[in-house]
Amino acid sequence: MQQIVDFILELDKLKGVTRKTRPLGLDRYENSAEHSWQIALMAAALERYAAEPVAIDRVIGLLLVHDIGEIDAGDTMVFVEGGWEERQAAELAAVTRIVGMLPKPQGEGFLALWREFEFGATAEARFAHSVDRAMPVLLNLSNQGQSWVENGVSYERVVRRVGPEVEAGCPALWEYLATRLEAARQQGWFGA
Amino acid sequence: MQQIVDFILELDKLKGVTRKTRPLGLDRYENSAEHSWQIALMAAALERYAAEPVAIDRVIGLLLVHDIGEIDAGDTMVFVEGGWEERQAAELAAVTRIVGMLPKPQGEGFLALWREFEFGATAEARFAHSVDRAMPVLLNLSNQGQSWVENGVSYERVVRRVGPEVEAGCPALWEYLATRLEAARQQGWFGA
Repeated sequence: MQQIVDFILELDKLKGVTRKTRPLGLDRYENSAEHSWQIALMAAALERYAAEPVAIDRVIGLLLVHDIGEIDAGDTMVFVEGGWEERQAAELAAVTRIVGMLPKPQGEGFLALWREFEFGATAEARFAHSVDRAMPVLLNLSNQGQSWVENGVSYERVVRRVGPEVEAGCPALWEYLATRLEAARQQGWFGA
Repeated sequence: MQQIVDFILELDKLKGVTRKTRPLGLDRYENSAEHSWQIALMAAALERYAAEPVAIDRVIGLLLVHDIGEIDAGDTMVFVEGGWEERQAAELAAVTRIVGMLPKPQGEGFLALWREFEFGATAEARFAHSVDRAMPVLLNLSNQGQSWVENGVSYERVVRRVGPEVEAGCPALWEYLATRLEAARQQGWFGA
C-alpha cells in the first residue's frame, strides 16, 4: 500500500507543470493534470467521430497517463522545432522512474499505456493524439489566440503541426477546426 | 460538433472550482479538475485492493464526471454538516444542464455515470467513493494536516466522515489510513 501511496503523491507534481494555454477566464496557465482530465472527457464525448472504431476506455487510459513524464521533463509546446527525440527519451526515463515506484504489475500496465500513446500506431493512440492536439486549439479559439500571440506562433505553423494529427484520428474535428482557424486568421489571432 | 465543443469548453470551468486542500509544495488550492484526474489514476493503481471485483473502466468514468456539478454549485468540504440533500439537488440540476449541451446519447451516458456515483449502490460506486474520500486525507498527511488545521476539523470528524466510506470500498486503504491518522493525531495535525 505504501508503494501505491508514494506513486499517487508523486503524480501530484503534475499539478505544478504548467502549459502555455490559459483556462478560459482564469489569470493563470493551465497545468498538465487538469488538461489530462479535460481531454479524457473530450475523447469520451467525441468517440463516434473517431476515424476508426476505438476501445474508448483504453483511449481514456492513454490520455490520463500521457503527460506524466513531464513531472521530470516539463511541458514543451508542440510548436517548438527539433529536439523531440531527446525529449521523448527524457520522458521515457521519467515515466520509467515514476511507475517503478509501483508493484511490478501495476507499473507495467501504466508504462504500456504511456508507450502506446507515445510510440503506438493503434487506432486508440491516433484518436488520443487528435484530441490532445485539438484541445489547446479550442482554448485559443475562445481566447483570441492567447498562446499563439504570446509565443509568436503563425497560422501556418498551427495548421502544419496540428492538422495532420487531428485529421488522422478525428477527421470531423479537423474539418471543424480548419474553418475556425481560417476565421481566426482573419481576426489576426496569431503571432508573426 | 459545435455542441460537443461547447460542452468541452463548459467543462473548462471546473479548473476554476477550488477545493480546501493544497497540491504538495504549491502555494494555491487544488481545483476539482486536477483532483478528478488524480483519483482516476489512484483507482487504477488500487484496483486489486477494491472490496469487491470492479469494472475499473467504469470506476474511472465515475470519477472523471463526479465533480462536474460543482461548475454551478461549487465545492463543499466533506466536513460541512447538513445541507447535503439541497446540495445534491443543486449538483443534479447543474449536471443536467451541462450534459444537456450534448447530443442526447452522449449526454445520457455522462448523466448515468454521475447518477451512479452519486446515488448508486454498485461496487464501482463504492470503490470510487473510497478513493475520492481518501485522496485529500493523503494530501493532508503529507502537508501536516493543512486543510484540517485551516478549517478546524478534528481527528474524530475525519475518522467519522471518511472512515466508513473508505473502508466499504477499499478496506486495505482504510487500514493504512487509520494507522497514519492516529500518528497524525499525536503530531497535532488537526483543528480543535
